[in-house]
Amino acid sequence: MQKTAFASDNTSGICPEALESFIAANTANMASYGNDEWTRRACDAIRDLFQTDCDVFFVFNGTAANSLALASLVQSYHSIICHKLSHVETDECGGPEFFSNGTKLLLAEGEGGKLDVEGIARLVAARTDIHYPKPRAVTITQSTEVGTVYSLAEVQAIGATCREMGLAFHMDGARFANAVAHLGVSPAELTWKAGVDVLSFGGTKMGMPVGEAVVFFNHQLAQDFAYRCKQAGQLASKMRFLAAPWVGMLQDNAWLKRATHANAMATRLSDALAALPGVSLMFPTQANAVFVNLPANAAQVLKEKGWAFYSFIGAGGARFVCSWATTVEEVDTLVADVQTGLSVAG
Amino acid sequence: MQKTAFASDNTSGICPEALESFIAANTANMASYGNDEWTRRACDAIRDLFQTDCDVFFVFNGTAANSLALASLVQSYHSIICHKLSHVETDECGGPEFFSNGTKLLLAEGEGGKLDVEGIARLVAARTDIHYPKPRAVTITQSTEVGTVYSLAEVQAIGATCREMGLAFHMDGARFANAVAHLGVSPAELTWKAGVDVLSFGGTKMGMPVGEAVVFFNHQLAQDFAYRCKQAGQLASKMRFLAAPWVGMLQDNAWLKRATHANAMATRLSDALAALPGVSLMFPTQANAVFVNLPANAAQVLKEKGWAFYSFIGAGGARFVCSWATTVEEVDTLVADVQTGLSVAG
Amino acid sequence: MQKTAFASDNTSGICPEALESFIAANTANMASYGNDEWTRRACDAIRDLFQTDCDVFFVFNGTAANSLALASLVQSYHSIICHKLSHVETDECGGPEFFSNGTKLLLAEGEGGKLDVEGIARLVAARTDIHYPKPRAVTITQSTEVGTVYSLAEVQAIGATCREMGLAFHMDGARFANAVAHLGVSPAELTWKAGVDVLSFGGTKMGMPVGEAVVFFNHQLAQDFAYRCKQAGQLASKMRFLAAPWVGMLQDNAWLKRATHANAMATRLSDALAALPGVSLMFPTQANAVFVNLPANAAQVLKEKGWAFYSFIGAGGARFVCSWATTVEEVDTLVADVQTGLSVAG
Amino acid sequence: MQKTAFASDNTSGICPEALESFIAANTANMASYGNDEWTRRACDAIRDLFQTDCDVFFVFNGTAANSLALASLVQSYHSIICHKLSHVETDECGGPEFFSNGTKLLLAEGEGGKLDVEGIARLVAARTDIHYPKPRAVTITQSTEVGTVYSLAEVQAIGATCREMGLAFHMDGARFANAVAHLGVSPAELTWKAGVDVLSFGGTKMGMPVGEAVVFFNHQLAQDFAYRCKQAGQLASKMRFLAAPWVGMLQDNAWLKRATHANAMATRLSDALAALPGVSLMFPTQANAVFVNLPANAAQVLKEKGWAFYSFIGAGGARFVCSWATTVEEVDTLVADVQTGLSVAG
Repeated sequence: MQKTAFASDNTSGICPEALESFIAANTANMASYGNDEWTRRACDAIRDLFQTDCDVFFVFNGTAANSLALASLVQSYHSIICHKLSHVETDECGGPEFFSNGTKLLLAEGEGGKLDVEGIARLVAARTDIHYPKPRAVTITQSTEVGTVYSLAEVQAIGATCREMGLAFHMDGARFANAVAHLGVSPAELTWKAGVDVLSFGGTKMGMPVGEAVVFFNHQLAQDFAYRCKQAGQLASKMRFLAAPWVGMLQDNAWLKRATHANAMATRLSDALAALPGVSLMFPTQANAVFVNLPANAAQVLKEKGWAFYSFIGAGGARFVCSWATTVEEVDTLVADVQTGLSVAG
Repeated sequence: MQKTAFASDNTSGICPEALESFIAANTANMASYGNDEWTRRACDAIRDLFQTDCDVFFVFNGTAANSLALASLVQSYHSIICHKLSHVETDECGGPEFFSNGTKLLLAEGEGGKLDVEGIARLVAARTDIHYPKPRAVTITQSTEVGTVYSLAEVQAIGATCREMGLAFHMDGARFANAVAHLGVSPAELTWKAGVDVLSFGGTKMGMPVGEAVVFFNHQLAQDFAYRCKQAGQLASKMRFLAAPWVGMLQDNAWLKRATHANAMATRLSDALAALPGVSLMFPTQANAVFVNLPANAAQVLKEKGWAFYSFIGAGGARFVCSWATTVEEVDTLVADVQTGLSVAG
Repeated sequence: MQKTAFASDNTSGICPEALESFIAANTANMASYGNDEWTRRACDAIRDLFQTDCDVFFVFNGTAANSLALASLVQSYHSIICHKLSHVETDECGGPEFFSNGTKLLLAEGEGGKLDVEGIARLVAARTDIHYPKPRAVTITQSTEVGTVYSLAEVQAIGATCREMGLAFHMDGARFANAVAHLGVSPAELTWKAGVDVLSFGGTKMGMPVGEAVVFFNHQLAQDFAYRCKQAGQLASKMRFLAAPWVGMLQDNAWLKRATHANAMATRLSDALAALPGVSLMFPTQANAVFVNLPANAAQVLKEKGWAFYSFIGAGGARFVCSWATTVEEVDTLVADVQTGLSVAG
Repeated sequence: MQKTAFASDNTSGICPEALESFIAANTANMASYGNDEWTRRACDAIRDLFQTDCDVFFVFNGTAANSLALASLVQSYHSIICHKLSHVETDECGGPEFFSNGTKLLLAEGEGGKLDVEGIARLVAARTDIHYPKPRAVTITQSTEVGTVYSLAEVQAIGATCREMGLAFHMDGARFANAVAHLGVSPAELTWKAGVDVLSFGGTKMGMPVGEAVVFFNHQLAQDFAYRCKQAGQLASKMRFLAAPWVGMLQDNAWLKRATHANAMATRLSDALAALPGVSLMFPTQANAVFVNLPANAAQVLKEKGWAFYSFIGAGGARFVCSWATTVEEVDTLVADVQTGLSVAG
């Protein structure tokens, strides 16, 4: 039997606060397509959270949230600047290119899986002729695909560069909660106050069964976005079931508490693994994911014991992701199994 | 306070059998993206239902199910034949055109909202030059947008025509359950045995919170369809929550019992309304929707009493849709309110 | 041997004025992609013609000119209002839908193949919900596909309606020259002064070997249009050969003289045919095309004598198109052959 | 006054053999859209050249030829393997992504601007999960963007790998003539006999005013390709003017003689420049382009003297391209100017 606890944060189930309001929404008949009370409440809760009158749209998953948000910023002959390890580049099967009808992603290097101002400037300057797509937007993954977090200053610097260069600024926040939990800054500071135009706010990895929110801080960019969602198969008829979990999660800061727990579990795991001989961290553990170089024998033992984990970055690299559901026991069992593995002759 | 009971079948909540298995699926960690036990069980249940080894994919909603299924049948320079009142034409905001990158829908007339063999033949013959998109697929809505149902013979005739003319055959079954309940034939007979290549099997209107199944009876057409779903933002990470409701609904024929109830409520409503002076049926009531010509004063009174309903087809036409949740009391209250309305001076 | 003189205006060769400057452009090396003297001269000539500082782009053919112009006015979830007999609907194999990634064409009826203000208003009002594409642009074919011409007042009225309703206004001028020749108004009056935002100005049917001009009167809509052309395979490397014919045709009003001749030939043909017993005009002959109801025996004789012509509109309808190259002799021979045909027993 | 002789091979005019048949085609009326004698002759000439019954389509330019050919090999969720310096990646403004509705290009390294078997295998193996586009085609540029030529053995090896791995094989032959002239092998050997499925056969750079041929050696892949061209704005109405130049160029091997001349001029230039102190070749000169590292002072002097050339690859790199029109005098003048530049104090 496979142990999927650390394979991803989407192997977890539904967080109690999300489930409670999901079930509470299952009353009598209710207007469909978002014209219901739960959707209104969820939108208001998000506006409260960000302390601004943003435009909120609920879609089904992260690929859709990112791809539709980006498509609203560019035309097909434009390009989008991102880190070469960004989720939109590595894990959405060409979703952004599909929804934008061909917009190219321009890939930058950058320490710790993070795009930086120099990388953006370099790509903008690289080609300015008509034979190459024109940069029109920047997207960053916060927290990143390698478990790091952009500091507030880093986000602000990118925001300033975008304004200066006439680029729209999108944040892929599939794990936005983990980033906020790590940084301890307000959602407003980390987004629109820092120049972010549109945020994909992740619900699924946070503990919902399904659903993400696309949050536009720039009203003009949100124009007709509801039509875009509808045409793209992202308008839920029984919208209340996408919206209700947000109401539950945003009450009493549940979303942040749950993310803080996930981060803490990752830190516990990271500290324990880093202390083992022959194991080294690939990236600093700042959110809910741990990336380590694991000796081959240890990795082998983990697999024999049924642990599922990805090892797609470099030789020997292993990723372990924690969620709202991760327990101390699971962390300690995994660490113990790694120890066992290390003791096996290579 | 708005009364949405008859506005659509998607104003209803989650059917008990669907909810029960949804909640049952919320256990510990589980592999994501469909590599879980619930998804396996749901696929098997659908294969059992259709008595064949079909390929099953779960997507989020009907626009996606239809658009992705159709996109897998055609190229952008092809065309798709459908009735002018088909859902893909009238209510998906250009979704089929978007996902296929521009494929044109060719619209046929046809009694009772139903496409017929003559209509197909006429459109295929109308243009055979390179300056017009080449017909490559046919899609029918079963049950239709006006509450009628294609008979088994009608489906078989269209299937035969498609084979003869080299056209792929898609069935939009957002209300497939209501059609099966009306006809009393097996799902297999009504689909692949009649020549249907791919079915959009509706879950939401049947009583699920979210989700439809795309069922390919033709393995070749299903090739790489999982990639298509992923790229198009239709691959759920926590797939078990899309799949589990199918397990519940397909057990002990719950899906069919629920649809039979919805149809019965529509018949009760239809019979009562048709007996009222000045009210006439626009289409025979064969599934779960009733279309009537309502005198203006009656319509006005209904609105004043808070009833939500669509009236988009012709002058005075009103649509009332029943679902698994519709009660005899709701039907009788609506009928009484229509009666009251009729007694008001026009 | 087939006689193609009246099959279309694109069966003709290259007009002397166009050929002369084409050959004159074939000198030594010259900057490519439009950075050459001929392109500069052609753009200036078009700006002079329209008496305004418009943005001019040369593309290869009419499908591209129309599709790219329209794509710059809409997003995929919008719709474009046109007459049901417009060229973009009937003869571009879904080009507009393809380049816009799925934008729907909304079809209006209208006398003489012409869209009118009522038709536009009706389509705008028909659906205002999110489940149907939102009207965002209007396109008219001037002269029309059935040989009629919008009067200046008609164009102005549509322009005013577009402004009022927030719709962009495109004119498909594949046969713009024939329309101007018929109306005797200035190109400026017939376009931007009447509210046209962008014009597809036809070169091929006017006498060039290849090429059309997309003329934007609204600078904002032209933003990044050069990138759009490049990505869409519509940026000629040896641009001078697309541009030079415009220089020749626009000198000394050659374009208008040639179109006037084509119209005159059509009038001669129209008058002669209309005078024959059993032959009737389907539409008034206002530009360079004649549409007649031809008795079956006459049509049969024409085919036996090798005449190529389209008969795609209604039973018995035949289209004959004149061009810069049509001669009086050809017209008279055709008329004589129709007479012969009429004398054959039916 | 700018000297554009070496800026690109598309700064040249029309080659005499091409112009002669272009003008010869300008006779009386002729059937449009390719149903004419010149198109038939041109297609036959290409079939003769390749000694096989291939499917031939004439389109307007290289971006279209490549993008449409590639789009016919893949779906949007697939990927196309190419060298990171391939033309489709670096100079078509996202054309391949646009026409395929989002297909990703996967970039390989490789000596001399050439893709190799190892690079293909590495990209195929890199990702085999559903979250990344599935490799489905390979495209190579022959001759390459850096003036090198794939040997027959190299093409054959890639062809064999494609067959083995189930990948379609496209050759971007914008400068196919230069490659054939260099290698001295038959067009058949270099294409279908080596496993190439479809070739973009360049006409413009060879000496035509406009136009490329898409040549399918695999009939199945060519299915409905004429519709694809029409929809994509690539079906010329006066097709004879695209086709006729091919008739002229393919007669008496004119195309190959002209390409041989261009290559010889490049060799002359390359040899002379390489002999200069401080100048070094960046790539071997195998076709009609020369890439050299030029000291800054020399580059500066060239610019002052009006020479246009690209310098987009690395610091100091300069590209000079020869064509059918390049003269010995032009080569020698350029070399002399470089010499002058080198003598200027840096």
